[in-house]
Amino acid sequence: MDIIVLRPDATDDNISVIVKKLDSWGLKANISKGTERTIIGVIGDTSQVSEEEEDALKAMEWVENVLRILKPYKLASREFKKTNTEIKVGNHVIGGNRIHVMAGPCAVESRQGLLEIARKVKECGATFLRAGAFKPRTSPYSFQGLGEEGLKYLAEARQETGLFIVTEIMDARDIDVIVKYTDIIQIGARNMQNFRLLLEVGSAKKPVLLKRGLSSTIKEWLMSAEYIMSRGNHEVMFCERGIRTFETATRNTLDLSSVPLLKKLSHLPVVVDPSHGVGKWDLVTPMAMAAVAAGADALLIEVHTNPEEALSDGEQSLRPDYFKKLMDSIKPIAKAIGREI
Amino acid sequence: MDIIVLRPDATDDNISVIVKKLDSWGLKANISKGTERTIIGVIGDTSQVSEEEEDALKAMEWVENVLRILKPYKLASREFKKTNTEIKVGNHVIGGNRIHVMAGPCAVESRQGLLEIARKVKECGATFLRAGAFKPRTSPYSFQGLGEEGLKYLAEARQETGLFIVTEIMDARDIDVIVKYTDIIQIGARNMQNFRLLLEVGSAKKPVLLKRGLSSTIKEWLMSAEYIMSRGNHEVMFCERGIRTFETATRNTLDLSSVPLLKKLSHLPVVVDPSHGVGKWDLVTPMAMAAVAAGADALLIEVHTNPEEALSDGEQSLRPDYFKKLMDSIKPIAKAIGREI
Amino acid sequence: MDIIVLRPDATDDNISVIVKKLDSWGLKANISKGTERTIIGVIGDTSQVSEEEEDALKAMEWVENVLRILKPYKLASREFKKTNTEIKVGNHVIGGNRIHVMAGPCAVESRQGLLEIARKVKECGATFLRAGAFKPRTSPYSFQGLGEEGLKYLAEARQETGLFIVTEIMDARDIDVIVKYTDIIQIGARNMQNFRLLLEVGSAKKPVLLKRGLSSTIKEWLMSAEYIMSRGNHEVMFCERGIRTFETATRNTLDLSSVPLLKKLSHLPVVVDPSHGVGKWDLVTPMAMAAVAAGADALLIEVHTNPEEALSDGEQSLRPDYFKKLMDSIKPIAKAIGREI
Amino acid sequence: MDIIVLRPDATDDNISVIVKKLDSWGLKANISKGTERTIIGVIGDTSQVSEEEEDALKAMEWVENVLRILKPYKLASREFKKTNTEIKVGNHVIGGNRIHVMAGPCAVESRQGLLEIARKVKECGATFLRAGAFKPRTSPYSFQGLGEEGLKYLAEARQETGLFIVTEIMDARDIDVIVKYTDIIQIGARNMQNFRLLLEVGSAKKPVLLKRGLSSTIKEWLMSAEYIMSRGNHEVMFCERGIRTFETATRNTLDLSSVPLLKKLSHLPVVVDPSHGVGKWDLVTPMAMAAVAAGADALLIEVHTNPEEALSDGEQSLRPDYFKKLMDSIKPIAKAIGREI
Repeated sequence: MDIIVLRPDATDDNISVIVKKLDSWGLKANISKGTERTIIGVIGDTSQVSEEEEDALKAMEWVENVLRILKPYKLASREFKKTNTEIKVGNHVIGGNRIHVMAGPCAVESRQGLLEIARKVKECGATFLRAGAFKPRTSPYSFQGLGEEGLKYLAEARQETGLFIVTEIMDARDIDVIVKYTDIIQIGARNMQNFRLLLEVGSAKKPVLLKRGLSSTIKEWLMSAEYIMSRGNHEVMFCERGIRTFETATRNTLDLSSVPLLKKLSHLPVVVDPSHGVGKWDLVTPMAMAAVAAGADALLIEVHTNPEEALSDGEQSLRPDYFKKLMDSIKPIAKAIGREI
Repeated sequence: MDIIVLRPDATDDNISVIVKKLDSWGLKANISKGTERTIIGVIGDTSQVSEEEEDALKAMEWVENVLRILKPYKLASREFKKTNTEIKVGNHVIGGNRIHVMAGPCAVESRQGLLEIARKVKECGATFLRAGAFKPRTSPYSFQGLGEEGLKYLAEARQETGLFIVTEIMDARDIDVIVKYTDIIQIGARNMQNFRLLLEVGSAKKPVLLKRGLSSTIKEWLMSAEYIMSRGNHEVMFCERGIRTFETATRNTLDLSSVPLLKKLSHLPVVVDPSHGVGKWDLVTPMAMAAVAAGADALLIEVHTNPEEALSDGEQSLRPDYFKKLMDSIKPIAKAIGREI
Repeated sequence: MDIIVLRPDATDDNISVIVKKLDSWGLKANISKGTERTIIGVIGDTSQVSEEEEDALKAMEWVENVLRILKPYKLASREFKKTNTEIKVGNHVIGGNRIHVMAGPCAVESRQGLLEIARKVKECGATFLRAGAFKPRTSPYSFQGLGEEGLKYLAEARQETGLFIVTEIMDARDIDVIVKYTDIIQIGARNMQNFRLLLEVGSAKKPVLLKRGLSSTIKEWLMSAEYIMSRGNHEVMFCERGIRTFETATRNTLDLSSVPLLKKLSHLPVVVDPSHGVGKWDLVTPMAMAAVAAGADALLIEVHTNPEEALSDGEQSLRPDYFKKLMDSIKPIAKAIGREI
Repeated sequence: MDIIVLRPDATDDNISVIVKKLDSWGLKANISKGTERTIIGVIGDTSQVSEEEEDALKAMEWVENVLRILKPYKLASREFKKTNTEIKVGNHVIGGNRIHVMAGPCAVESRQGLLEIARKVKECGATFLRAGAFKPRTSPYSFQGLGEEGLKYLAEARQETGLFIVTEIMDARDIDVIVKYTDIIQIGARNMQNFRLLLEVGSAKKPVLLKRGLSSTIKEWLMSAEYIMSRGNHEVMFCERGIRTFETATRNTLDLSSVPLLKKLSHLPVVVDPSHGVGKWDLVTPMAMAAVAAGADALLIEVHTNPEEALSDGEQSLRPDYFKKLMDSIKPIAKAIGREI
């Protein structure tokens, strides 16, 4: 049910136009004339009418505002599915009692380097290896990733260590090759509203890790999950990675309140990436601890055996010894809230 | 030349590590020990080293900060090309003395409707018709555009009215069909950092209108232009369409200061889209006037003959009679600054 | 009239609690049970109930949302007063056909310096001299202004040049001395929600120039004007000076759309300060031109005869010769829109 | 040590002007001519020169940028004092091993109501009672607080329960009456840059809780602490309460990364206020848990026995039974990190 607020000077003719419009959508109008404003309550199944179509009402000069009461997403909503969604990857469950740690370098840089990092993070307790073979880079002159070669190294690391793989897709044309090698498809922050790409992974048979856009609202994020789910793929997990604000002391502002909020509005699991969230390696561990306390189902941590040689994001990567400390720091917190890592 | 600031407790060994690193990039270090900090000036051609690589220096525990002095973009910079770039489309020049008005509906909705709008905007003085055949929509349940059919209607409108066409590309796979029908390729705000798409249009032989991302800095925007130009396509124009801020009274915050700032930093033309910038039809005209006064080379205006029937963005669309008034309002301002419309 | 949206599981008992609450405020409930939600329309004069009191309804577990239909400000609203407010200062009118230029240094630094600047800006066509005797400074170690001595210099400059004076109040305890010397009292951005100070100037008999807070919404800004007006002083003018966003290429983001928006929502005059808005002297002139085109009633421009010797804000101050050019640039634009300077 | 970057076309004469300017401040120039830019390193004690004065250098047309290397705050910095500051209030220590909980209603509304809440929060384990007698309200028509009468009720609650008092000062003229009744003086978010008020509490003999401004950077926040400390009062604690961003699903965006960041940059204790941070009662507990995990030294929680009767902020107030649950939830987390509550 939606509400249309008219301007003080709206006439009966104006009201008729709206009633007719609603009628054409199969909806009824409940007109309520107050002393200061006339308000029209829309009755019927407004979920058929898109937000944009409805906004056309705002184009009428005698309409002051249109207020939506119902959420524009359905499949992603807690109302649609009351129980938490658990996503199975091999023998692991994301969204269950166990908190998973996904770790690895920003980009696959070399076979040797990747294997070395994979062994280290496995040793420290990570269950997923995350690294990019296709990299979104702000400069055309930067290293853009190894492409399929990188995916092969990931497969090799998976084979050797038993870690499951998370890697990013940047272009719909890569869907087949990505699906072939990865266990979870990552949609990066810059692609959260690349709607064609969302539809593409919506048809894939692999779970999707959907990063929050730099300036995306919680509602838009839920709508992007809805996009994927609308194509049949219901295995979507959110990943909070910080939003862009006026603050420059950290790379982004990690919005941990999104964790309990998404848990309330949706049934899907929530992952937190404190590495991108703060952008400084020495703040990653306290924010990982906070993320666990806030209810995160998994963490995404950047680890590099040699951050100062990293081809990207060295500043926020943890060395293996620091990553070990991070793991030691989050375990007691998980235990304190009745979960395990 | 870049500058590396060390932490107060950095040792000579720490400094050596940096010197070696710079050496591996073919760069020299100018070490300057102050009373409170040691600072290293980097000498040589740092443009070979990407920002991300250099940021790896920040991963070193004894480095407090790395400051970049040079701009990371080259081809897009005013230093690279001192004279304004003029982009020719048919007999029109964008970036010259004449200010062009690109107008039309948000989306191509029907053949009749499009032709009707095209005739109207032509009549009022527009020189380009802008409408989307592929539409980015936040909801998977919204109208997504007519696709190639819409492009054909655009071609027909072009034929009949002589208006040149601007339309958006959303997916690299559509490049051929878009190039076939359009005169200017639009990259939408949500795709400003869709780097694969940027490379694709960088190889096309059509001018590109690059909209600013919702939360993109001027520097990132220039880098996206650089992406396109790095592939050989130097016919790029910026389009300011508002940024996302805390203010909700307008749809976005139109950042008109980007116009003179881009003119200072770059040689490329700048377009302003006040319709998306404010999102309310009754604020479009004053902001169009302000954009012209600020130095815009072209305007992008949403016009619909029947905004309350529009399938998207009706709230910010002008009826033809209001669009006529807008044209009448901006002409004297153009004249006042020695330009024409 | 306000609207209360209940959660899907709200019971009749829950509804009764709300009805009783409304009753205690002298308001009636219009209950409308839809298929998905129950909605309560509040009937009666809700303007008696403050937004905060009403928000207490949101504290009820069975309330999903409370939507306000009416604006929380009255005296400042266009509905309250249809005609533009014109503020008279001596023989000048702010909010009339003539656009006034208020110019001067950020701070009064010395008697000689101030007089020199005053003569220059007068010569170029300014009608008001703006300079601070009490300065808000982010560092306790910075120059804090000359205090009353500075006010005396302003009075002397007024005497000699005929310019009227605008100066900032920072502390309610300074009200008498400020009122004694100034023609317009400036409330700075950082004090826009210093409510005690607003009440104080609300009792003064001098016009008030109310700068927008760094992160203040248009609605909050209007509420701050309402504060002042609620005490009887209706001579308030807004001053847009840029808001804080993620963009760092300019000091702030000058939100020129606030000009036509305030004109629509309110009857009070609107001033624009492009100097603080952009923070770079070479962008001030184009933004001043844009401000005039957007409908500003006055401009506030920082001018300093020796910016590199300025004790504050040198970066954004214009030298007199540039200020002269600015005046020459805005005049044709004012003329183009049927106004004068 | 600061760095001045010159434009490519700067001449030797231009450089001389800068050298002379620096000389007048008792500083020396280290000139380094690169192939693309000339850079001047400033040698000497630049802490004497304020940021604003130095920015005057940017006013020179041949200066491209001025980069500050040193932090503008001293007393508040970790470099100035390596050990954590512990603030004693009665037998309690803020900034020590024990995490304190400060709880209470937004405003003192009545004697009975306050006493009732005080007893409840004491019973649940709070050690401080926080409530406002002077209230900053966005509407002049809202309840503005009970003033000194409210302070007397606070004193009575203190007497009866042994809870220490935290209350807000809004006006420098209230300093004596506030100091008379309170144990900790709160500076609200809207007054974080009310510099006169900061100086006033800087002379008081009571600890200060300094809330972060809605759009204040970490650096500005540290500068505001510096203001207070510069007057001799070194007992300052920060209070993170959320910043304003584009997200509207929560009242503010609680920036928990400020906790470890402040701990790194400063020696002062850090408090977190999740109630204002999120603005919805059902998200307060998870964010309180996260704050403890992130390293907060104290929490500020809004509690009201009857949120739906609260005269302000009812939406974010916890009922005593929920507050009890919050206390039960944070204790195991405190224990997990080796602290107690």
